[in-house]
Amino acid sequence: MKRNPHFSQLSKNYLFQNIWERVQDFLQKNPQAQLINLGVGDTTEPLPELIAGAMGRYADALGTPAGYRGYGEGQGRGELRNAIATRLYHNRIDSDEIFISDGAKSAIGRLQVLFQPGLTVAVQDPTYPVPVESSIMNGHRLIFLPCTPENDFWPTEFPQADLIYICSPHNPTGTAATKKQLKKLVDLAKRQKSLLIFDTAYASYIQESDIPRSIYEIEGADEVAIELGSFSKFAGFTGVRLGWTIVPKKLTFSDGASLYDDYRRANATLFNGASNISEAGGLACLSEEGLEATQLLLDYYMANTAILFDALTATGHSVYGGVNAPYLWVHFPEQDSWSAFDELLQKTHLMTTPGVGFGPAGEGFLRFSAYGHQTQISEAAQRLTEHFGNK
Amino acid sequence: MKRNPHFSQLSKNYLFQNIWERVQDFLQKNPQAQLINLGVGDTTEPLPELIAGAMGRYADALGTPAGYRGYGEGQGRGELRNAIATRLYHNRIDSDEIFISDGAKSAIGRLQVLFQPGLTVAVQDPTYPVPVESSIMNGHRLIFLPCTPENDFWPTEFPQADLIYICSPHNPTGTAATKKQLKKLVDLAKRQKSLLIFDTAYASYIQESDIPRSIYEIEGADEVAIELGSFSKFAGFTGVRLGWTIVPKKLTFSDGASLYDDYRRANATLFNGASNISEAGGLACLSEEGLEATQLLLDYYMANTAILFDALTATGHSVYGGVNAPYLWVHFPEQDSWSAFDELLQKTHLMTTPGVGFGPAGEGFLRFSAYGHQTQISEAAQRLTEHFGNK
Repeated sequence: MKRNPHFSQLSKNYLFQNIWERVQDFLQKNPQAQLINLGVGDTTEPLPELIAGAMGRYADALGTPAGYRGYGEGQGRGELRNAIATRLYHNRIDSDEIFISDGAKSAIGRLQVLFQPGLTVAVQDPTYPVPVESSIMNGHRLIFLPCTPENDFWPTEFPQADLIYICSPHNPTGTAATKKQLKKLVDLAKRQKSLLIFDTAYASYIQESDIPRSIYEIEGADEVAIELGSFSKFAGFTGVRLGWTIVPKKLTFSDGASLYDDYRRANATLFNGASNISEAGGLACLSEEGLEATQLLLDYYMANTAILFDALTATGHSVYGGVNAPYLWVHFPEQDSWSAFDELLQKTHLMTTPGVGFGPAGEGFLRFSAYGHQTQISEAAQRLTEHFGNK
Repeated sequence: MKRNPHFSQLSKNYLFQNIWERVQDFLQKNPQAQLINLGVGDTTEPLPELIAGAMGRYADALGTPAGYRGYGEGQGRGELRNAIATRLYHNRIDSDEIFISDGAKSAIGRLQVLFQPGLTVAVQDPTYPVPVESSIMNGHRLIFLPCTPENDFWPTEFPQADLIYICSPHNPTGTAATKKQLKKLVDLAKRQKSLLIFDTAYASYIQESDIPRSIYEIEGADEVAIELGSFSKFAGFTGVRLGWTIVPKKLTFSDGASLYDDYRRANATLFNGASNISEAGGLACLSEEGLEATQLLLDYYMANTAILFDALTATGHSVYGGVNAPYLWVHFPEQDSWSAFDELLQKTHLMTTPGVGFGPAGEGFLRFSAYGHQTQISEAAQRLTEHFGNK
């Protein structure tokens, strides 16, 4: 039984497993510590009652003859696909091009099967680890595109690549690509015959008007881009599991075969859909009242972000992001990421994420997630002020 | 953007998509037809109230500060893994070796990334299409092991293979492997250094005492076998989505690397767990009352199976399976599978599954699924009697 040889190129653990082990070790030695988690970007606030209630009612109804449902529709519940097309995409894309998923992480994993191994995959550096590691697992060659304060966190150039994975708003830096940047990228992808994978998991946090919430706001993007969406951060569904993948019918491989047809085939063969209870929740999110209630949650997390942003800025650190996403990307020019991480954990009992865990250009940075109860976030801000002092 | 070249070897559609298109076409031409679905094996009866209610309460509680939960534990909820280890495996395996999944289909898909492409994969013929098609997608070479009435639906021999995928009770034939057969298989796998993938999606239907419900009932199986389990057919969770994968810590690749470590890595990187609401339902299934309530559902479907078995046997057809699984495998010696399928659809408005869709050795057979409301199953039995007459 031969091992996939590419696995030996991976670090032993997934980033957040590594962090968790270090934190467990710290807690064992410091059982009194009041740890505040600004690390993994996990939602903390209760769901709006109308959304939780919709799932509760759906689940209860599964215990009745009228409410029971078995396997769902192949691409996911039609009503939900329609609601996504209408409410989130203003019918820019067709509901047939939407595939309901259990979240962006597994959706990225399932995309890999479409492609011949050994491709060139360009990713932002730093970036969300999943596209990098799933590319390694599948024997692709990675090109890292540094995103740093010097280039305003947008790649200076895009060399020829088969696949370009872009996350905007960007995890981990919390910055976001402008319409102008994305237009140039779409044009380049057309010219260089690259496929874009556009991850919009944080789109609902966008505040500024020139930041697209979807790649399909750019003309012609439906000829070059797959888009990933998620209810995780948009509606607090990190544990409920729901997302979507958009595969436009116009997409083709270099031999002219329909990428849409292959995706539909792979999706039907390797996936049986998201939970129908989660789908009922997604539908409730996209009602008028659901969108209003969800917006209050998003506002809450962005208020958290502002609290941390102000506190960290006042300490004299260079702080990036935090305008269109609930992440702050903070520079520690005198330290490497892990020592900055350890210092904060030991001295302030704050858990963050070492920037280098997201790629080499993340060295010297920490990501601060603003998910958390507001009292905890304020407490974290105070600890940061006390530890670093105000400049 | 280069297409995965193996996709061109797949049929255009996944089997059940094909059937569904044919049935849609029939219904368009025969809008009055009272179709009864004995095709796709989809559960139809409401969940026991205590299970639906547990999910309803969990979902409602997500709307409260005390009940909200974000991302779950890496391998799935600990309590659920413990309950599976205790209730279903009598602690034969450790809860650390259990990974909660969203069902066996996607779990099979995620296994593929562990292995070097180009392996030899042996499968029962006929078999569930997913292991076959995911093997094709990943460039493996398939060996079909015919399972026919002549060999009592158990492969006559197992040639050398890297991976052996076995489903027992067997979808589609409804037959099941005995303890003796599985013992020989485990010994052979050890000798030939093959990895077994053992799919137990239908284990809860087993009635006979010499049929193992888990490969780990066989001594030494934890050195050679991965096992797949599912709540879909066991508890009516086809739409709720919940399952598990067992990867024993003793498993290694040919180079000695730990298969468990790689699986844990892949699972953390490419999957974010089943819905926490579904997990709450799974936990309710495994309580004492849950197991009792679930057993009533299983008995119901097995009563359906007996109704269809008797009716089909009385028509003079050779009928197999139906003792340890809710599937009947029926021989139509004068016809190919698709013409038998069409005859039944046109003349009796019964939808079945053509055996050849599960592999070449399924030619001339139809699979009858006994999922359905009992009134419908009795009506189906009557139509079969009327159409074929009693012999």
